[in-house]
Amino acid sequence: MPIRKGSELDLIRWIRDQEMPSPPSLMRGIGDDCATFDPGFSKSMAMSSDLLVEEVHFRRNWIHPYFLGRKSLLVNLSDLAAMGAHPYASLLNLALPPELTDDYLQSFMTGFLEEARRWDAPLVGGDLSRSSGVHISVTVLGYAEKGDFVYRSTAQADDLVTLVGDVGLSRLGLKILEDENPEELGEIASEEDLSSWAADSFRLRCLRAHLLPQPQIEVGLWLRQNQLANAMIDVSDGLAADLLQVARESDLTAELDASRIHLPEDMTLDTVLNGGEDYALLFTSSKEQVERLARSYPKGFQPYRLIGRLTRGPSSLNLLRGEERILYQPDGFDHFWSS
Amino acid sequence: MPIRKGSELDLIRWIRDQEMPSPPSLMRGIGDDCATFDPGFSKSMAMSSDLLVEEVHFRRNWIHPYFLGRKSLLVNLSDLAAMGAHPYASLLNLALPPELTDDYLQSFMTGFLEEARRWDAPLVGGDLSRSSGVHISVTVLGYAEKGDFVYRSTAQADDLVTLVGDVGLSRLGLKILEDENPEELGEIASEEDLSSWAADSFRLRCLRAHLLPQPQIEVGLWLRQNQLANAMIDVSDGLAADLLQVARESDLTAELDASRIHLPEDMTLDTVLNGGEDYALLFTSSKEQVERLARSYPKGFQPYRLIGRLTRGPSSLNLLRGEERILYQPDGFDHFWSS
Repeated sequence: MPIRKGSELDLIRWIRDQEMPSPPSLMRGIGDDCATFDPGFSKSMAMSSDLLVEEVHFRRNWIHPYFLGRKSLLVNLSDLAAMGAHPYASLLNLALPPELTDDYLQSFMTGFLEEARRWDAPLVGGDLSRSSGVHISVTVLGYAEKGDFVYRSTAQADDLVTLVGDVGLSRLGLKILEDENPEELGEIASEEDLSSWAADSFRLRCLRAHLLPQPQIEVGLWLRQNQLANAMIDVSDGLAADLLQVARESDLTAELDASRIHLPEDMTLDTVLNGGEDYALLFTSSKEQVERLARSYPKGFQPYRLIGRLTRGPSSLNLLRGEERILYQPDGFDHFWSS
Repeated sequence: MPIRKGSELDLIRWIRDQEMPSPPSLMRGIGDDCATFDPGFSKSMAMSSDLLVEEVHFRRNWIHPYFLGRKSLLVNLSDLAAMGAHPYASLLNLALPPELTDDYLQSFMTGFLEEARRWDAPLVGGDLSRSSGVHISVTVLGYAEKGDFVYRSTAQADDLVTLVGDVGLSRLGLKILEDENPEELGEIASEEDLSSWAADSFRLRCLRAHLLPQPQIEVGLWLRQNQLANAMIDVSDGLAADLLQVARESDLTAELDASRIHLPEDMTLDTVLNGGEDYALLFTSSKEQVERLARSYPKGFQPYRLIGRLTRGPSSLNLLRGEERILYQPDGFDHFWSS
């Protein structure tokens, strides 16, 4: 695929040649001024955008473009999961340094399109540019039954807080990269080779959590369709910061029970609460909803864990440790400031 | 506005405080995992994404962030114009070097939101990151009556080719910047001051064409609603390249009549045909449609100009110069390669 020779046009042609399911109401996919679709199927639509910037969100030497392409769509899909939305379509704006080869672009696109197929989010548009570093900007579009999304601002007083997915592992995965500076990882493009490189299963879990986070799309859909979540958010900035977000937007106080937070290996509670890039799903439900959840939670899903509750009071986060109740200030994972 | 102190959250709060009309079917705007809306008003939707990268698409010293914010939305809206779509909403992913001040971000956002209000494309989501250079990624969403968009691939044999808007001026505007390297322009944030700086009205037109291109939204809408265009494209890569695109996608030969191309001042035909960033509107129509166009074209619109036609034949572009018919190879404006 000599994509770069003719640039964007050739890339569009190559993308068109890839097998890609089309949402039923898609009218035109990639290649015109706009993608067009007709969502008049009495559904409501959701859309979200995320950036991945080289040296801020990833290092080129630590992640193969095939994994990077997959991750760049996966982290966006996590936002749809947190609304209880079905994926519908995706757009990709990609800026690459001119010294990167065609192989880099092709591997990236192969990974991106693989996840687009897996999650029913076909690529329908975007832009390509030169740049001094790799910049990836993805927009995803999703849908739900008419009006039926789960927001972060609709938690109710006395709701219990539930978590699905791991927190902290992604941060450990990042720590492995930072400690070992494994420049050879940039060459590893298959999950088998990643597994051999990781050497043990816990390290592999951490690396996978960091490199290939799984959006909780099915869980989000199931919770919404069964009306089991009053409020929902994906944990991307750190568990503490994101729970505080729910509390703030819902005008409630959040209480997090430290004893219910699983600490992988020798991680500290602070590290787990402020890990970031977990892409777990956090939601709040009444006691009645939690009882129904317990009775009907599908076996195939990752286990859920009750971790706290919401009460009337100032928009803050309290940490319960034994008898202590401490006002907790999240050390939020903010890409604008952190390295 | 101390946006950066608390980063994205404060930016979202600031954006929420700005006056911004909401499309009737918008359910949630900025601040949740996704913006949500319910387009079940028997309309069809279009969406498009574009990138603006520092040192590729602009130089920070030559454009004030207020103008850059405006331009970054305007060039995206041009894609909606080329579909005959109404703007509906916008998303912004913005990566900024940490050394830029709050003032830079605030000026950028003020310009972006000003155009979002003007063109009914409220900002409903996005992401903010650190970066070594300014990267702007915008997604726009638009709508039209059910199924009624104008594509670039639906030109008919014997269609005439019509152009609305200036070509070449934007390139001259860029040339002024390149020749004069006016670093003081980065400080000029008002159109009055830009006018004084430009010193004469032709220079001002060129600079405005480059810094603040106007999307032909009203013209695109009017053409679609009156069924006066079989195919349409916005001229962003250069008149020749974009006309060739229409020919290729429609499987026809394009003929461009050199005598009908207006050459501003001492520009060569090649420069005008390959200018780029014109954001003019190019469309094709049958003779009957062109007759109706001539009778009903609104006075308030920029004048239109017939510049060529499409015929059966190989997907190529011929230039007519007097008696000569030359196969023309566009020197397309491609940000991936050009500087």
